[in-house]
Amino acid sequence: MKAYKDMSRDELLALKRSLEEEYKTEEAKGLSLNMARGKPGVSQLTLSMPMLDVINSSSDMNTFLGNDTRNYGDWDGIGECRKLIADMMEVKKDNVIVCGNSSLNIMYDTVSRSMIMGVNGSTPWCKLDKVKFLCPVPGYDRHFKITELFGIEMINIPLNEDGPDMDLVEEYVNNDEAVKGIWCVPKYSNPTGISYSDEVVRRFANLKPKAKDFRIFWDNAYGIHHLYEEDQDEILNILEECEKAGNPDMVYIFASTSKISFPGSGVSAVATSFKNIEDIKKQLTTQTIGHDKINQLRHVRFFKDLDGLADHMKKHGNILRPKFESVLDILESELMGLEIGSWNKPKGGYFISFDAMPGCAKSIVAKCKELGVVLTDAGATFPYGKDPEDSNIRIAPTFPTPEEMVEATKIFVLCVKLASVEKLLGE
Amino acid sequence: MKAYKDMSRDELLALKRSLEEEYKTEEAKGLSLNMARGKPGVSQLTLSMPMLDVINSSSDMNTFLGNDTRNYGDWDGIGECRKLIADMMEVKKDNVIVCGNSSLNIMYDTVSRSMIMGVNGSTPWCKLDKVKFLCPVPGYDRHFKITELFGIEMINIPLNEDGPDMDLVEEYVNNDEAVKGIWCVPKYSNPTGISYSDEVVRRFANLKPKAKDFRIFWDNAYGIHHLYEEDQDEILNILEECEKAGNPDMVYIFASTSKISFPGSGVSAVATSFKNIEDIKKQLTTQTIGHDKINQLRHVRFFKDLDGLADHMKKHGNILRPKFESVLDILESELMGLEIGSWNKPKGGYFISFDAMPGCAKSIVAKCKELGVVLTDAGATFPYGKDPEDSNIRIAPTFPTPEEMVEATKIFVLCVKLASVEKLLGE
Repeated sequence: MKAYKDMSRDELLALKRSLEEEYKTEEAKGLSLNMARGKPGVSQLTLSMPMLDVINSSSDMNTFLGNDTRNYGDWDGIGECRKLIADMMEVKKDNVIVCGNSSLNIMYDTVSRSMIMGVNGSTPWCKLDKVKFLCPVPGYDRHFKITELFGIEMINIPLNEDGPDMDLVEEYVNNDEAVKGIWCVPKYSNPTGISYSDEVVRRFANLKPKAKDFRIFWDNAYGIHHLYEEDQDEILNILEECEKAGNPDMVYIFASTSKISFPGSGVSAVATSFKNIEDIKKQLTTQTIGHDKINQLRHVRFFKDLDGLADHMKKHGNILRPKFESVLDILESELMGLEIGSWNKPKGGYFISFDAMPGCAKSIVAKCKELGVVLTDAGATFPYGKDPEDSNIRIAPTFPTPEEMVEATKIFVLCVKLASVEKLLGE
Repeated sequence: MKAYKDMSRDELLALKRSLEEEYKTEEAKGLSLNMARGKPGVSQLTLSMPMLDVINSSSDMNTFLGNDTRNYGDWDGIGECRKLIADMMEVKKDNVIVCGNSSLNIMYDTVSRSMIMGVNGSTPWCKLDKVKFLCPVPGYDRHFKITELFGIEMINIPLNEDGPDMDLVEEYVNNDEAVKGIWCVPKYSNPTGISYSDEVVRRFANLKPKAKDFRIFWDNAYGIHHLYEEDQDEILNILEECEKAGNPDMVYIFASTSKISFPGSGVSAVATSFKNIEDIKKQLTTQTIGHDKINQLRHVRFFKDLDGLADHMKKHGNILRPKFESVLDILESELMGLEIGSWNKPKGGYFISFDAMPGCAKSIVAKCKELGVVLTDAGATFPYGKDPEDSNIRIAPTFPTPEEMVEATKIFVLCVKLASVEKLLGE
């Protein structure tokens, strides 16, 4: 394979003509495929259907402690569900509040509470002239949307293979009192799929924040979402590391079963220090009468324990692995050596991240759309939807069938090639 | 019956000795009863158990429109559930967003959003020097807790037999720009059980608020919670009346199935104008990935339509009616004519409200507690927990069995008598 950048103008023009021929052929097919949505496929949803049988009209509806899950009470979650989710999050049960169906909602509420009420008695953020969040990029668009909605200034931090650029994180956090938080997806990161190294986690735990109310928003969304049974990423326990470092209250950990049981009908949770739990409690007990405890019971009766969760996740992995591999195979066979893009090979999570030549991402996404293949908007993985390099594209291989993914990826590589040639030709 | 106030000092002293004898007898019994909690009894929860069978592993999980309820999507609720809840709330489907399990949570979020983002483009309330809410009293303690948490000043408005004192409401709303909201439970009010008259609803709809971002928080928590099939309160449709009056955006209506299906595992909703829906949508789509659509489907498949809901509520009424009546019978036979208290006879809802002689409520609640009968804290039905008259006590007859209610009410009237005698004796 000859790298595009080493091609002569004539070679590029010839290549362009041939790619445009291919493009026309594909255009005529009138496809309709979607690689945009980070949502489980139907076969994954089917895995959890038996969960709908474990609670029925003849079930014992009481918790271990004898509380009726059908009535008010247990605002912080039923004990057995807190235990299950705590095990999943690798924390103690007493550090966990089990909430509703959406961990994003807990994150939103956490920012919202900090805006209006402050953090453990600090000045409410809405009373400050400036509040800033660090945003490792590329990252999760819905995190950035939350901070954007609250008018919080977002600062891009490069996300490396082992986690965020910690030199930069330390520089900001330890010196700027306006920096109140950082968004993290520490394991099988959205979208790059990387996991934070032990050193990165320890450097997080050992931050010396200028702001007493600085908090790490540790969204461990893919903590047990492995693609390979034998080759799994492990990350250090941030809550323990923060305790060791004398920063026990510095982190909120978020997780949910959205991509374990059902998106929208799972359970979510926050894990943090006792002091932070007390701070949350003051507001949460005013905000709600509690969360859906019957659904919590349903989850516990179905998964039983951490082993049950792990078994279930193996099945998810078996469904997702071929989809990821078919995308990666095509990227490798079609693009390797052309030097017009790079991509990661995640061992878990929901995404493949593709970095095109700078200035090509929007063009690629637009071309794919014309051919009937919907990708996440270029720029979506950056705060304010602005990728300064116009390079990153998030590929979501989970929802389509493997056959559809093959077809869609072929379109994708065609568009990458064509956009790159056009760029090199200065068009 | 001789009114206590007409008794001589000797008569009162003799009465006191005899009541104290009774008190000692009751004290020896070591009872443990609870009339504090406005929660359904076990037999009510049993009514909804078949709901847990309508969705199982072999169910069609798609909505009418073919959307998979098990996956992301339909952030504002599945169509058929919005229809069902809209019918229940007597509004159009397009005016409804179906949310999670707690209407209190929607109210909290509505205040929170107004604080940080304003209302339809108005100045965020947190940027204002002063924000005030009107609070018809006695009212629902958890409403008042929300406004208290946000530092909103609460102003007591007397709640009459036909609704809040509208002269006072108009005076405040139409002249004070700091008045941004009012908490209402328009039907079978918590705790007095009264329903707003047509005139009151019309006067609400015809308010001329000084503040453009004034909103009525219309918590129709007991809209279909009748005790009597043949004698039901009806209230005017506030959304329609507001439209007619040229105030289409002035009201948010809240409701839930907490006391229809299961508290904590029901569905809740907000109904309001399209313009307000758009305002909510901006924030809600950032806050959450959507709500539990499987549970929405479960509710629709079980209740089917408004007739199904009405049939179900008849069964609730049949369970609750004897409990309410046994309390009312004892109050009437024991206290009528003594002029030491007054109470309402609600035709629906969850509470009986008792007004003791001024200065006696705390004493009555304390005495009851000593005898093992827990009542809602005196003052709880007022903002900041402060009843200026120390008079109102909320009785919740729903959770105990009828036999327990009889026993608890006998204790209650004994304590009312004793506290009143002590008061009249100047003790």
